[in-house]
Amino acid sequence: MRTLKLTLAYDGTDFAGWQVQPDERTVQGELEQALARVTGATIRTVASGRTDAGVHALGQVVSFDSDSRLSPEDLLRALNACLAADVRIVDAQEAKPGFHAIRDCRGKRYRYVLHDGAVPDVFLRRYAWHVYERLDANAMHVAARSFLGRHDFRSFAARSDMPRGTERTVTAASVRRGEGPERALVRFEVEADGFLHHMVRAMVGTLVEVGRGRREADWPAEVVAARDRRHAGRTAPPQGLFLVEARYDA
Amino acid sequence: MRTLKLTLAYDGTDFAGWQVQPDERTVQGELEQALARVTGATIRTVASGRTDAGVHALGQVVSFDSDSRLSPEDLLRALNACLAADVRIVDAQEAKPGFHAIRDCRGKRYRYVLHDGAVPDVFLRRYAWHVYERLDANAMHVAARSFLGRHDFRSFAARSDMPRGTERTVTAASVRRGEGPERALVRFEVEADGFLHHMVRAMVGTLVEVGRGRREADWPAEVVAARDRRHAGRTAPPQGLFLVEARYDA
Repeated sequence: MRTLKLTLAYDGTDFAGWQVQPDERTVQGELEQALARVTGATIRTVASGRTDAGVHALGQVVSFDSDSRLSPEDLLRALNACLAADVRIVDAQEAKPGFHAIRDCRGKRYRYVLHDGAVPDVFLRRYAWHVYERLDANAMHVAARSFLGRHDFRSFAARSDMPRGTERTVTAASVRRGEGPERALVRFEVEADGFLHHMVRAMVGTLVEVGRGRREADWPAEVVAARDRRHAGRTAPPQGLFLVEARYDA
Repeated sequence: MRTLKLTLAYDGTDFAGWQVQPDERTVQGELEQALARVTGATIRTVASGRTDAGVHALGQVVSFDSDSRLSPEDLLRALNACLAADVRIVDAQEAKPGFHAIRDCRGKRYRYVLHDGAVPDVFLRRYAWHVYERLDANAMHVAARSFLGRHDFRSFAARSDMPRGTERTVTAASVRRGEGPERALVRFEVEADGFLHHMVRAMVGTLVEVGRGRREADWPAEVVAARDRRHAGRTAPPQGLFLVEARYDA
């Protein structure tokens, strides 16, 4: 038995998220079908975290055990030949025996893309949240800094019954407006040792209240302190969210 | 009667091109339906040029006559409220009476996007042509310069029976590789007083032969001189092509 580590990119638009569900097109489902075709065996995969329907990935990490003798390079090519064009294996590596994409994950980075051009962009409709108000990206950046550090992020959790608790450590959080042809794009980047379900999208819903001028830049700090989901902004729509990276010890 | 000038962006993926065709979803068809809903009148529109199925537009220009009394701003908003998300009116202006988007067009600019990353990019599959060989963008740039000036572009025409002749003047032609996160993107930009049907895509098919190292950088000049479609490369696929701009006298 060997343990393998795959890195996947996918366009979440036409998927009902990562996790296998009956009668739904899921990334895990399509990947496990491709693995069955390529290796001839039933293989169960584990991802660094689930992504919801419509959420994209640039670097989702997946682990599994297999007795296949294919080299990682051949496995990558064979899987990509089976998979639909909206999911690609971008890297395949031999991992240490027992490597586990959830348990061993040290942190993740997400990006959320907002577009505040006067007219929605036809090429961004699947990859950004369009808002009609001009956003104050500087105020949003100041606000995002209140997420930094170790906090109870219950205010940004979809459900309060989180089995592993609701404390997380945010190690990076920034909001930047693009330049030149990207000047109507505002990107929120956030890195943490782990994320609660819907946490990034609830953070974005909160930051956008600041960006629109409905709330002051110090309001998100109050939302964190309240530890109550009813204090935060609404959950931002999925299509602006990208899982950029999952980190592991070398 | 007034004459109006619209600028449109569209994602060509799910359209059978610009021009109305029975039982097909076309940009012209959807725009004229929206105009009928908004103005209550049957309006025939004219575009700077037809785009083929799968080809995109950032700045397609459309003209039409109407006795509607809506301001251009209200017309833009009303049309965008009717249109599907893959086509947007990005500008609406009152034009001089008799303005005609084909007849008055002084020139057009197209962009063609190539992607030569090791693995196809899930987010570019509708917006670029992926080639597995690493392209020599510098050689392609040198080659593209042989398109500059007034030439008979019959070698790049889909049909030889062009009613307005096959001579055109190319005023700009360049190939550049992107930087940083765009380093796997190679963009061909070309501007001319007019284009033959499939001309840009046949140019790209020809330049890619140079980029792949199968032909020398001086070969496209020979293809131009041959004035025979059989000498050029194959027609590149539609999804990499963008109509960027159509120019008119002020």
